[in-house]
Amino acid sequence: MRFGTVMRRRRAIALAGAGVVGVAGATAGVDAWLRASGDEPDNPAADAVPFYGEHQAGIVTAAQDRLHFVAFDVITDDRDRLVEMLRDWTAAAARMTAGKDAGVIGAVEGAPEAPPDDTGEALGLPPAQLTLTVGFGPSLFRDARGRDRFGIAAKRPPALADLPHFPGDALQPEISGGDLCVQACANDPQVAVHAVRNLARMGFGVVSVRYSQLGFGRTSSTSRSQATPRNLMGFKDGTANLKAEDGRLLDEHVWAQAGDGAPWMAGGSYLVTRKIRMIIETWDRASLAEQEAIFGRAKGSGAPLGKTGEFDEIDFSAKGADGQPLVPMDSHVRLAHPDHNGGARLLRRGYNFVDGSDGLGRLDAGLFFMAYQRDPRKQFVRVQTQLARNDRLNEYIRHVSSGVFACPPGVRGPDDYWGRTLFG
Amino acid sequence: MRFGTVMRRRRAIALAGAGVVGVAGATAGVDAWLRASGDEPDNPAADAVPFYGEHQAGIVTAAQDRLHFVAFDVITDDRDRLVEMLRDWTAAAARMTAGKDAGVIGAVEGAPEAPPDDTGEALGLPPAQLTLTVGFGPSLFRDARGRDRFGIAAKRPPALADLPHFPGDALQPEISGGDLCVQACANDPQVAVHAVRNLARMGFGVVSVRYSQLGFGRTSSTSRSQATPRNLMGFKDGTANLKAEDGRLLDEHVWAQAGDGAPWMAGGSYLVTRKIRMIIETWDRASLAEQEAIFGRAKGSGAPLGKTGEFDEIDFSAKGADGQPLVPMDSHVRLAHPDHNGGARLLRRGYNFVDGSDGLGRLDAGLFFMAYQRDPRKQFVRVQTQLARNDRLNEYIRHVSSGVFACPPGVRGPDDYWGRTLFG
Repeated sequence: MRFGTVMRRRRAIALAGAGVVGVAGATAGVDAWLRASGDEPDNPAADAVPFYGEHQAGIVTAAQDRLHFVAFDVITDDRDRLVEMLRDWTAAAARMTAGKDAGVIGAVEGAPEAPPDDTGEALGLPPAQLTLTVGFGPSLFRDARGRDRFGIAAKRPPALADLPHFPGDALQPEISGGDLCVQACANDPQVAVHAVRNLARMGFGVVSVRYSQLGFGRTSSTSRSQATPRNLMGFKDGTANLKAEDGRLLDEHVWAQAGDGAPWMAGGSYLVTRKIRMIIETWDRASLAEQEAIFGRAKGSGAPLGKTGEFDEIDFSAKGADGQPLVPMDSHVRLAHPDHNGGARLLRRGYNFVDGSDGLGRLDAGLFFMAYQRDPRKQFVRVQTQLARNDRLNEYIRHVSSGVFACPPGVRGPDDYWGRTLFG
Repeated sequence: MRFGTVMRRRRAIALAGAGVVGVAGATAGVDAWLRASGDEPDNPAADAVPFYGEHQAGIVTAAQDRLHFVAFDVITDDRDRLVEMLRDWTAAAARMTAGKDAGVIGAVEGAPEAPPDDTGEALGLPPAQLTLTVGFGPSLFRDARGRDRFGIAAKRPPALADLPHFPGDALQPEISGGDLCVQACANDPQVAVHAVRNLARMGFGVVSVRYSQLGFGRTSSTSRSQATPRNLMGFKDGTANLKAEDGRLLDEHVWAQAGDGAPWMAGGSYLVTRKIRMIIETWDRASLAEQEAIFGRAKGSGAPLGKTGEFDEIDFSAKGADGQPLVPMDSHVRLAHPDHNGGARLLRRGYNFVDGSDGLGRLDAGLFFMAYQRDPRKQFVRVQTQLARNDRLNEYIRHVSSGVFACPPGVRGPDDYWGRTLFG
């Protein structure tokens, strides 16, 4: 995030390989550049988020403003190569989230003709609160042909069940699923893109990009320090989201526990992704009254219908002068509410997207929904079953991609790596 | 751009239509919301850029960090409707660039069931330096079937010539051309997207979205107050760009003059767009020495090869110990330099893009090149002819879309409108 004054990434660049100096005489220039990097304005959005910990960062971390999500197919059957890549990824992620390069930029000593170990487009940019969060899809445990390529089929968590078909689903297989996923979030899209691109580069021969998605303007706050943002329908989204400050509730609703049937997932969480295309041209021609009745909230304030403040408790029993419920029976806020879903709650972390236009004169836009939870069978599936059947909003949206991933616990330190509890 | 503290858009929302209050009781909530909007931190990136002036904003305006570019087909043959839309667009653009809604959010008095005149997703966001810049494509003057639909064929500027075919062009017609274009730039993508979406909404029945493109991390600085950003090849891009401070040079190279053959364009400029896909997986496996030889600059500092500082003058005659030019004959910086193109200069204003992946395991990423100039025939076409023939970079890039647009002079005030000098 640049702001007139440009903040520069503090990092050590190794540009001193003999080959480079010989060609470019670049060393002195880099020194000058490094000298210019000393003074950064105090800007929390530019800071680093700790990478190591009990849980992976990027789940309860206060949601950053930009997303680059990528799903990979694993294209090798060699378990050792997969694990080696996960180790390399972990080391690179620790560096990049701290605002450093993925690896040495310049020529490695003795190999002046080697490609750089970092692609360079984030040089001079701050950490920008980059988080990288990895997940394992059901197909990693047993592929479409039924093979247990990596000897982990028996460790597949019961909670990592395939999602059922929901009414109205219009899923495109080529942008659904995936053996691995990486969620990169940052306050600068170039930092998020750089991280994903370098992981893809390092994974050459082991993984292949299946699909990727850019998002902006997060649609959920995950901390009480954040105001509730708006989705592309113009409504505040995520008012009642689980938040980082909800310690006990997080253990109940977000973090997998040792007794949940897959001990290696203790401290991890399950991610459900849904790309939800909005039919915004139709939506934009609906009246404000219709729009508010569909969401069950006022568009301006975000207040539940019949209330005045965004965070006022919803009164589902209140009726208007006409005897009808103020919050309609088929409104989104009613159908999605924990009270009507056996207490099921989600930690949502979605982003708006615009992917250009669709060739039919319409913007290809909507919500890339992401939600973390302890057990999708009891949480996302329960809520979505209700929404898919009854939500009036369905007239204006289409679910076009879907994914479910087991995100392992956090990396404890430099000797640990993403997936150690599964593969180690 | 949100930063922990959320800055809210100062705006008057009319949510007081009887229909709305009746349904939602929303007024009190909105009042509370407005009260919360008073204190914004002092942040230039959140400010408004003046809309009215001699030239359109968004050309020499210090380049913002985010882009939403859209090209439209005009789907009516009715000149009056087209002009009416341009008037409506101009009024909405003046409002939105000032941080206001495109129109009244709430129900219009007497029409409680009307759709809102603003889609709402930018509520609470600051102006974020939004600029909206409009351009007219060659097909507006005479369409593909040779028709002069709007009686303006005789006014087509000589400088608005169709671009020639360049060697290596791999253009996709469905993402090229366009009767009209709008360049929306802002420091918050949601603000840029909101603006384009509302113009598209207002243009219903008159225009249809032909293609649109999101970009981030501008690749050119257009003011000396900005540091040079990096493209997705990791190199600084735009070091020698024309800048806002280059007053006399701008008249010579950027602004159309009254004597140039189309008096209605005086004070306007011509925009060339090229979507340049990068073959980044191949690029990422090239050595640093190779990469630097291709650009002719050091990757870290941006210094010309053989020099030490980014802004050092390039010495095209310097030779290395091997007797070869330090800046190779087929390097990008040499071939694109004004000295080797009859003095031709451009004001570049491009953005990086990542459009997900391409279905072949690769990121679909690159540069959305945009350049403003007084006459593309003497500027872009001249430089690109040289680059297309000889640039070593061509091995790693592919031009997949192309557009050329006449961007009229600025709107002088509330009674003026985009295109008045052409249609009025």
